[in-house]
Amino acid sequence: MEPNPFLVDVARGALVESRHRGRYVVCDADGHIVASGGDVDALVFPRSAIKFLQALPLVESGAAAAFGLSPPELAVACASHGGEPRHVDTVAAWLERIGLGVADLECGAHMPSTASAAETLIRAGANPTALHNNCSGKHTGMLSVCRHLGEPTRGYIQPDHPQQRRVIAVFEAMLRLDLARAPRGLDGCSLPQIGIPLAALAGAIARFGAPDRLPSQRAAACRTLAAAILAEPFMLAGTNRFCTCAIEACGGRAVIKTGAEGVYVAAIPARGLGIALKIDDGASRAAEIAIGQLLLAHGDLADASRAKVEALLTPTIANAAGLTVGGLAPAPGW
Amino acid sequence: MEPNPFLVDVARGALVESRHRGRYVVCDADGHIVASGGDVDALVFPRSAIKFLQALPLVESGAAAAFGLSPPELAVACASHGGEPRHVDTVAAWLERIGLGVADLECGAHMPSTASAAETLIRAGANPTALHNNCSGKHTGMLSVCRHLGEPTRGYIQPDHPQQRRVIAVFEAMLRLDLARAPRGLDGCSLPQIGIPLAALAGAIARFGAPDRLPSQRAAACRTLAAAILAEPFMLAGTNRFCTCAIEACGGRAVIKTGAEGVYVAAIPARGLGIALKIDDGASRAAEIAIGQLLLAHGDLADASRAKVEALLTPTIANAAGLTVGGLAPAPGW
Repeated sequence: MEPNPFLVDVARGALVESRHRGRYVVCDADGHIVASGGDVDALVFPRSAIKFLQALPLVESGAAAAFGLSPPELAVACASHGGEPRHVDTVAAWLERIGLGVADLECGAHMPSTASAAETLIRAGANPTALHNNCSGKHTGMLSVCRHLGEPTRGYIQPDHPQQRRVIAVFEAMLRLDLARAPRGLDGCSLPQIGIPLAALAGAIARFGAPDRLPSQRAAACRTLAAAILAEPFMLAGTNRFCTCAIEACGGRAVIKTGAEGVYVAAIPARGLGIALKIDDGASRAAEIAIGQLLLAHGDLADASRAKVEALLTPTIANAAGLTVGGLAPAPGW
Repeated sequence: MEPNPFLVDVARGALVESRHRGRYVVCDADGHIVASGGDVDALVFPRSAIKFLQALPLVESGAAAAFGLSPPELAVACASHGGEPRHVDTVAAWLERIGLGVADLECGAHMPSTASAAETLIRAGANPTALHNNCSGKHTGMLSVCRHLGEPTRGYIQPDHPQQRRVIAVFEAMLRLDLARAPRGLDGCSLPQIGIPLAALAGAIARFGAPDRLPSQRAAACRTLAAAILAEPFMLAGTNRFCTCAIEACGGRAVIKTGAEGVYVAAIPARGLGIALKIDDGASRAAEIAIGQLLLAHGDLADASRAKVEALLTPTIANAAGLTVGGLAPAPGW
């Protein structure tokens, strides 16, 4: 089996010190591949990269309308947020509005992903709660559906709970796959993860961004979530986080989302394209550069956006004394 | 060019989610290769994996004896320490003993590498200093040589300072290489890094651990540093850090040291072997598993040690709710 191609180089002084291989697919809503590299059929756990698909029932069920969810709330429902105060406060207020609290979240607690937010918490002598979990918005969205439909909220993360059955049905429709026998795993927030071919993931992302041929209710939900993310990119990730910076750089052209272990996806609605990539070794630092490179190539970006995305593609590495000692860049030749 | 082999797999649920490729060399003090994988001639920046070579002038110059350095001090001179209180206090007291202070360290400041030590610092409302830099012991060792020899301490990190010329001379002798034209870079602590073939690195590590045929003063210095590291593994890294745990697990059979960007080395004095490895993508999580696998294969370990090293080879991955969701392991077939 041919190895996947080098996508990102990490240089230091006169050497390329480390290299990241990966695979990617760019395809349209029919699944026609317009560009790819490496093994597009191998399975991938999309991890957090499909949070906006997991959030579709929130809109389709009527819960979002019934609870009057705002764009920041819809964006944080799709987020891997940094646990910054605005993220946490937004989720806390939303939970209260649906008559629930932090104890109802089954995602577990972890330190805020954004270092400055973690430091603030530690300095205050406080411990992180499930509100700080990067997935707290997604979980609050799922709880909102249960509340709206009068279902039990306890155990909403279990595969046989109606909420997760709805999510799997959405996946199957968006991916055009029967997932009954797909390999499974548990995500960092304890929700089910489904192993799917990378090309199928790219197709689902394309359909999310260009949903014209989906059933009208589904298409409307896709558009609602995409609009919320594009209007509130801070809520999707946070200060200096790549998803937020890349969405801002692309000036509304692309819905962009990361997943753990080196996954990235982007929908480019105006071109009807979806992008999915996976870095073989799981490195986020490489996935960021790779999605940026693909956005440059396929995003049909305005000149001002191109310059901003290009600036994201070549981050420098500074050492402890503040000296620039190296940097990352797309590997030559792709 | 054949790709380097898969060395470490990262599994989640029913999938291998990420894979790490790398290359390794096991050789004797003559440089005869007894086992290898992947490209052994390609260059590598050894990074912190050669701190015990960088520390040889500390002993050879007579500085260690003159300042009465203890095994913990000699071990921290070779360390990438976690910035825990004992590391920081040891370095601070040593600096004071040579008539210098934190302002003389040119390594820069960073947060303690060990998370609990960083949290303690943040909770105290304090900022990290150069003492917390994982390299502060190495730098204090270099400053000690300068003080002992009556050389200026300012600029001791510069390539043309006598201290760095001494270190390069040690590298050339231990590596058996002329490094005049070797590609260079700057390390995280601003010291020069030299690009060297992985096989040459393994040879130097073998000679460090089995220095019988080196000049007697050099051989004695190698033995002094190896004994200090084996006696004080906590000082080399810290609480729950892989170097410390692996040295303890091997029960005195191996001197083991990590370097940034996925480098690991180990000397096995009783067998006269040196091991050097580099993970292609720079992942520490994979370098740890790979060096453990090589120690099992070549360390001639006692049964009790084998069981302890085996336990280090298959760490589990827990999610935010504390559930075991996956784990790392050596890739099948090597």
